[in-house]
Amino acid sequence: MKKSVDEALKKDFQIVFHNEDLLNEALTQASYVNEHPNQGLKFYERIEFLGDAVLQLIVSEYIFKRYPEMPQGKLTRLRAAMVCEASFSQFARECHLDQYILLGKGEEKAGARNRDSLLCDIFESFVGAVYLDQGRQTVEKFVQQVIFPKLDTGAFDHVIDHKTNLQEILQRNGDVLIHYDLLNEAGPDNDLDFKVAVFADDRQLGSGVGKSKKLAEQDAAKNALQKLRVKNA
Amino acid sequence: MKKSVDEALKKDFQIVFHNEDLLNEALTQASYVNEHPNQGLKFYERIEFLGDAVLQLIVSEYIFKRYPEMPQGKLTRLRAAMVCEASFSQFARECHLDQYILLGKGEEKAGARNRDSLLCDIFESFVGAVYLDQGRQTVEKFVQQVIFPKLDTGAFDHVIDHKTNLQEILQRNGDVLIHYDLLNEAGPDNDLDFKVAVFADDRQLGSGVGKSKKLAEQDAAKNALQKLRVKNA
Repeated sequence: MKKSVDEALKKDFQIVFHNEDLLNEALTQASYVNEHPNQGLKFYERIEFLGDAVLQLIVSEYIFKRYPEMPQGKLTRLRAAMVCEASFSQFARECHLDQYILLGKGEEKAGARNRDSLLCDIFESFVGAVYLDQGRQTVEKFVQQVIFPKLDTGAFDHVIDHKTNLQEILQRNGDVLIHYDLLNEAGPDNDLDFKVAVFADDRQLGSGVGKSKKLAEQDAAKNALQKLRVKNA
Repeated sequence: MKKSVDEALKKDFQIVFHNEDLLNEALTQASYVNEHPNQGLKFYERIEFLGDAVLQLIVSEYIFKRYPEMPQGKLTRLRAAMVCEASFSQFARECHLDQYILLGKGEEKAGARNRDSLLCDIFESFVGAVYLDQGRQTVEKFVQQVIFPKLDTGAFDHVIDHKTNLQEILQRNGDVLIHYDLLNEAGPDNDLDFKVAVFADDRQLGSGVGKSKKLAEQDAAKNALQKLRVKNA
């Protein structure tokens, strides 16, 4: 077990711990410590306390800079969607951290290894351990691999209003006339696909599809934002 | 006004902003922006979003390292006492940030300049601006001057259990017999002062005073911890 977590972290994230004790602490639940007294083991909770704050700051700073026109209320909603049990437990599974948690027998039987609340904690404690052992830069690289790409693949689209973002960016330097045109409706009546394009002063910026006009417009705005970002990169 | 905030920051904290716009944004409330349209002004809320996360991490990391035996629950309670409206509004006043807030006339009349919620926001946005302009190290120096000394002067003693801390540190390497002895009771019956000393295996580590035995014991434990810290520094 011990060997494989080292190998996995090296292979997947190019992370090699200097202090293995920190990594062990981050992956150990109290139930395991209780079952192995007199070994001087520590469990993850203190490191999780730190990892939580590390993730809050790195995610906050990233979205603050990436969405320079997004008002505070939306930033707060987006951060809450990214920094939450549902997201972190999913990330923990994607990184296969669930495989390496040290659990007591009772907790193992009770299915703790697949419990979202534990997986969320372990994701935070793992990040806390990387921060303590390797510093912020390594956490940033890890998070750029695990969390931030999900902003592009749409995992947080329910809290990002792409139409408003696009409008805010385009109108930063003065008024621009933005309009969305329906290009196409296809499919059976009860399962239509809409295709929409977005224009700024009659220049087409992007297009998108969706099961409603509203969804297709959001998709078109997102597509336009991606193209603008590539152009400005 | 503009000149004096620069002078005050330089004199009190050795902080000189590279980008004055960031400092202005951090000190400007929306009501002021609304009263001065067409000037392209921004208000503090986005920077406050970032500053909040910066403070959370720096405070978390400091208490995590300062109290190596403090369990997560207590760390969380201590952080909550340090990172809250009551604390931050007080720090904002101590730093005289209240004098430099740009407010609309209505808000000024309504007494916003002395409102804890606004002062807390401004403390966070100020820290966010320092972070963006100067980097984390300058924020740390500022926080070491403004927040952390309060851990020694007792501002957060209501959430720190010094007796438990002392016990955890002394017993880290095995059992130690800790006891508290009443040295003295003085004063009129309805206003007694208690003096207590704390011993580890009959070696006196510190002493303290208080209006009850319990308070005097906490004070003695705190005194012992300070001496241990000096010895280990």
